Amino acid sequence: MAGNSFGQVFRITTFGESHGKGLGVIIDGCPSGIEVDENFILAELARRRPGQSAIVTQRKEPDKMELLSGIFEGKTTGTPIGMVIYNSDAKSKDYAHIKDKFRPSHADYTYMAKYGTRDYRGGGRSSARETAARVAAGAIAKLLLKKYNISVHAYVNQVGDLKLEKAYNELDFNNIESTPIRCPDLKMAERMITHIKEIKKAGDTIGGVVTGVIRGCPAGLGEPVFDKLHADLGKAMLSINACKGFEYGSGFAGVRMRGSEHNDPFIKEGDTVKTTTNHSGGVQGGISNGMDIYFNVAFKPVATIIQSQNSVNEAGEIVEVTGKGRHDPCVVPRAVPIVEAMAALTLADHLLRNNAIMGMNE
Amino acid sequence: MAGNSFGQVFRITTFGESHGKGLGVIIDGCPSGIEVDENFILAELARRRPGQSAIVTQRKEPDKMELLSGIFEGKTTGTPIGMVIYNSDAKSKDYAHIKDKFRPSHADYTYMAKYGTRDYRGGGRSSARETAARVAAGAIAKLLLKKYNISVHAYVNQVGDLKLEKAYNELDFNNIESTPIRCPDLKMAERMITHIKEIKKAGDTIGGVVTGVIRGCPAGLGEPVFDKLHADLGKAMLSINACKGFEYGSGFAGVRMRGSEHNDPFIKEGDTVKTTTNHSGGVQGGISNGMDIYFNVAFKPVATIIQSQNSVNEAGEIVEVTGKGRHDPCVVPRAVPIVEAMAALTLADHLLRNNAIMGMNE
Amino acid sequence: MAGNSFGQVFRITTFGESHGKGLGVIIDGCPSGIEVDENFILAELARRRPGQSAIVTQRKEPDKMELLSGIFEGKTTGTPIGMVIYNSDAKSKDYAHIKDKFRPSHADYTYMAKYGTRDYRGGGRSSARETAARVAAGAIAKLLLKKYNISVHAYVNQVGDLKLEKAYNELDFNNIESTPIRCPDLKMAERMITHIKEIKKAGDTIGGVVTGVIRGCPAGLGEPVFDKLHADLGKAMLSINACKGFEYGSGFAGVRMRGSEHNDPFIKEGDTVKTTTNHSGGVQGGISNGMDIYFNVAFKPVATIIQSQNSVNEAGEIVEVTGKGRHDPCVVPRAVPIVEAMAALTLADHLLRNNAIMGMNE
Amino acid sequence: MAGNSFGQVFRITTFGESHGKGLGVIIDGCPSGIEVDENFILAELARRRPGQSAIVTQRKEPDKMELLSGIFEGKTTGTPIGMVIYNSDAKSKDYAHIKDKFRPSHADYTYMAKYGTRDYRGGGRSSARETAARVAAGAIAKLLLKKYNISVHAYVNQVGDLKLEKAYNELDFNNIESTPIRCPDLKMAERMITHIKEIKKAGDTIGGVVTGVIRGCPAGLGEPVFDKLHADLGKAMLSINACKGFEYGSGFAGVRMRGSEHNDPFIKEGDTVKTTTNHSGGVQGGISNGMDIYFNVAFKPVATIIQSQNSVNEAGEIVEVTGKGRHDPCVVPRAVPIVEAMAALTLADHLLRNNAIMGMNE
Repeated sequence: MAGNSFGQVFRITTFGESHGKGLGVIIDGCPSGIEVDENFILAELARRRPGQSAIVTQRKEPDKMELLSGIFEGKTTGTPIGMVIYNSDAKSKDYAHIKDKFRPSHADYTYMAKYGTRDYRGGGRSSARETAARVAAGAIAKLLLKKYNISVHAYVNQVGDLKLEKAYNELDFNNIESTPIRCPDLKMAERMITHIKEIKKAGDTIGGVVTGVIRGCPAGLGEPVFDKLHADLGKAMLSINACKGFEYGSGFAGVRMRGSEHNDPFIKEGDTVKTTTNHSGGVQGGISNGMDIYFNVAFKPVATIIQSQNSVNEAGEIVEVTGKGRHDPCVVPRAVPIVEAMAALTLADHLLRNNAIMGMNE
Repeated sequence: MAGNSFGQVFRITTFGESHGKGLGVIIDGCPSGIEVDENFILAELARRRPGQSAIVTQRKEPDKMELLSGIFEGKTTGTPIGMVIYNSDAKSKDYAHIKDKFRPSHADYTYMAKYGTRDYRGGGRSSARETAARVAAGAIAKLLLKKYNISVHAYVNQVGDLKLEKAYNELDFNNIESTPIRCPDLKMAERMITHIKEIKKAGDTIGGVVTGVIRGCPAGLGEPVFDKLHADLGKAMLSINACKGFEYGSGFAGVRMRGSEHNDPFIKEGDTVKTTTNHSGGVQGGISNGMDIYFNVAFKPVATIIQSQNSVNEAGEIVEVTGKGRHDPCVVPRAVPIVEAMAALTLADHLLRNNAIMGMNE
Repeated sequence: MAGNSFGQVFRITTFGESHGKGLGVIIDGCPSGIEVDENFILAELARRRPGQSAIVTQRKEPDKMELLSGIFEGKTTGTPIGMVIYNSDAKSKDYAHIKDKFRPSHADYTYMAKYGTRDYRGGGRSSARETAARVAAGAIAKLLLKKYNISVHAYVNQVGDLKLEKAYNELDFNNIESTPIRCPDLKMAERMITHIKEIKKAGDTIGGVVTGVIRGCPAGLGEPVFDKLHADLGKAMLSINACKGFEYGSGFAGVRMRGSEHNDPFIKEGDTVKTTTNHSGGVQGGISNGMDIYFNVAFKPVATIIQSQNSVNEAGEIVEVTGKGRHDPCVVPRAVPIVEAMAALTLADHLLRNNAIMGMNE
Repeated sequence: MAGNSFGQVFRITTFGESHGKGLGVIIDGCPSGIEVDENFILAELARRRPGQSAIVTQRKEPDKMELLSGIFEGKTTGTPIGMVIYNSDAKSKDYAHIKDKFRPSHADYTYMAKYGTRDYRGGGRSSARETAARVAAGAIAKLLLKKYNISVHAYVNQVGDLKLEKAYNELDFNNIESTPIRCPDLKMAERMITHIKEIKKAGDTIGGVVTGVIRGCPAGLGEPVFDKLHADLGKAMLSINACKGFEYGSGFAGVRMRGSEHNDPFIKEGDTVKTTTNHSGGVQGGISNGMDIYFNVAFKPVATIIQSQNSVNEAGEIVEVTGKGRHDPCVVPRAVPIVEAMAALTLADHLLRNNAIMGMNE
């Protein structure tokens, strides 16, 4: 039982390698009647695309996308939506230099250990190019959420030691797309960009943190005891390439707090029950409580560096590996739309899962 | 589609509330031929049980467990294993004081928002008592993993500000069960215990971190791109009550590192490919690489405090809520066996998932 | 990935053997707010129970049932419903005579081939006693369907060569429970009963057909292209012990018809689109069309006969097998409530699956 | 939760409409190392293709197929296999005459009832063209089964009243592809062809039965109690367009038999346990017993007839519907490869499901 599907009701299944003919996704379970603007999907893909700025990889991937099914006369029909993104760059390159080598902290060795074979061209299925399919599907999920007034945001919160001190609700999200780093604090954005350029010049890479924020989520989403909303969000984020950690609400910092500080007192505003603080991160007992949902996603430094490293090859001999070509010095700017996509897919799924049983009570 | 099942091949489904007749679990997909020692299950349950020491809740829950099916002549038969744990304490108590109140940072409000009703007796399904079923099932998973020489460990790494400085591989796991706090550094254990007692005396609670370690896991487990091994481990942990975060390998600290430091160089030892460092935490590209798997799980302070708090009731009126009775001042000592159980369940599932396709290559 | 769960949204998981401590079921995904009358569940179980009449097995199985969770103050809470039925008769009997023999057309050999072991006491998991858990869960499904005015009926249509000539809509369903054979044509019922008694006297068994009818099903249930409503109904029925075939609407007889006869013309009655004939059996393209859904389920003669038969034992030696004890001469009278239960479970699941996406369009 | 996936471990998900840009399938869970001959897939598609003979529809569908992923250097890699079949014929035709009409016994009305919209061009998702994706995926499943020496066959057993008297094991399967009707009895084949031509000339259609046979299946496949091997085969067949019934082994005829005739006595031949008769159809208790698996699949007459019929339109007005164009007078000749494909997919899935737990016992 391979793991290329995500979601239970709003369910995506992806396929494709970085250097094959193409990659794609099927969305099964999308309700009918959602207006789909193809340009919106393309715009989302553009936010993830290589070559968009000086601080990301300069590879060219035009992301030629084709909507094959599930949409008729501009609206979803309720049948599966198939999308393919062709690899224009799929020409036969020379991979002889890494063909039988295991690049450190890449998935070369583990794919070989698992499958007894691997597509050695540019990482194959383990390439981050796979996430383009997630972003395309996530665009449809966002359109679904929009009907419910749920919005999904993400931004860069940390690059190496450079970390925002402001909380998510002290920032102006309109600034996110103003800079290539996607950090809404413009001064910090500049510092992060400078830092990444230095790292890049050194042939090295650096990690970072992306913060995700979901607004407008109604109370009631999440399916205890295992499919708690934050547990599925966590899995969604941890499934993104290079992700090393996930925390929501007070997160790891919360462990230092006392219950008397950490508890979020309830109040009533108009007809709505709210909490005066939000250490819970919008989720209590695995179910959304109507407050903002926010979380942090940790990304390690990219494994491909332009420096020589020791490793072994398939025969177990010691070899030297040197990254070449055009790789990201830091994943976080391009991870922002991916975090948003996975959050939107998780929310869309839980929204529909909740619909299944809610119908009864209306 | 409710969320009370975990795992795809080795799959558990749990049921039961804290104050109903009982709770339990069905394991579906456990292979035949595994010797099951009922005493081992009971011993695992005893590690989770209230009342085991002065630093945990003094509630009495005898955990009368009954194995109903799936085991014949001491071995699993391959048919579903049904286990029930009866609530001996299910007598009608007086819950009038919280019946219609929403306790801060509990699941009272969200269950009501989702289901339009709730079992207000002691938290109902949202009670941590539900995890007893996980521990019972986890015991069977551990017995399965033992056949593959895979072992699962967990210990308390942090309580409030008291945090171990040693890494998991510098600690003597034989010390874990020596103290009620389950921290293998005995000096730190003493400090943690003292700290928790003070917190308890103040009617307050405190958070903490549990570290999990899996040894002997073969390379090849994990199902990219969504069901990566660490993504399923993360979901497993995040589904535990009070969990606020998960990180594996270098985790959130890894974001500050450069690729040149973070990458784990491959070497060959005898016939085995290893890495000289292990920032990857035993997982690369979502697939185990044969090294130790280690991870941290953050727990918030328990929401029930013996102090008066403001809140609202179902009618939206301002009310006062005061915890009473016998609650945990800190969940981590009792969370240790739960973290182990969820890790064992995740590994058992991925082991069998991998078997499904491996058969072909042998 | 073992197969003891049925349904996607309204999902049951069963466990238990005929001669272990008990058997049971968890229902996960049942909406909250459904009133559950325990006596209704018991009444359904009584319809399946051995010993209810002279034409069924005289075994005693009191079906002591316990509702363990998911129901509070008489209503479902939305959390999993756990039910256990204890085997009062689980005392150690003498099974030495069949312990290592493979009874012809039983599951003894195949369970041994699959699992390398088997619970030889009375069939273990392959015993039809397992269906008691389905009937208990089906009772809850019926209560859910009732809220939507959907009713589920079944009756005996054929025993051996004795077959009703009347179609389902020419029969008075009020007669079904009037006779122990559960055939609504009272004259035919008498003939069937006489026939079964003769078969029984000869120490033999006979097959039969049960017809199922679902009324009040709204148009729109069913999930093409694989989870067509009739495909899931078919799987549900084929999963019942001794079932050999399933047909719906015109069924196997329909293959002899021409399109011009078989097509069901649409008309409009009031606000409702109907068809003037119903060869479609209430399902077109895998989706219910609002007309009655009807289907036939074929059951083979019970394998246990009171006659000596040749077989082999585990060592491969030729042995003689003679059924003894109290077995059903014909399964169909007791299969009626099981067919109803499986139909109700299928419909409840599809109703909720449809709710998941319908919410959007309202 | 929409239903466009089939299988649990070897799992396919399909998408696409008859008149959109294309249709396709993702296979997730196919083991690595299987040699894939693209020509074999094309040959299987050719057997399903319209226009292949005088007794099938004369529509032209070139089935331009593209393998997008999951295969590298001629072998499967263990990653998802994506295949797209483009609709060369996707030009804008004039569908005005049926755009808002519900064709009798088609899925027009039910799709509209379910989704509130429909792709009216040639049936959209409900078109039998969707089965091309199944055949493509089934070809890969056949290649997997071949490694285990399991073969899958199907042939036409009945057209209208013309029914073979010989059992499957009295026929020469080499004759199946000799005639366009795919009936291995050549005399009957001729009569069937003549009959279909007459039906076609009358502008009418006729039903039929396809028999499926699986040889070489080892004992042990099938997952009781719900995912019995025959139950999943039944669902697979019932999910094919126009299918009205499924029976295996003795099937509906078995209901007339006595246990003493119907039971299959065990014998031992060499090291193998066999049965002297095979009323069980190769499956006992839901698990394969090593004997041939055989089953019948009933297909109704095609709904599109070249005759005028009364119906209603979306507004509920009475309208006249007349099929035009090039439709199949009888589906069974083209259903043969589809039945094979669905059988192969079911077996491949159960083989891998069994592998998951078998690993333990080896």
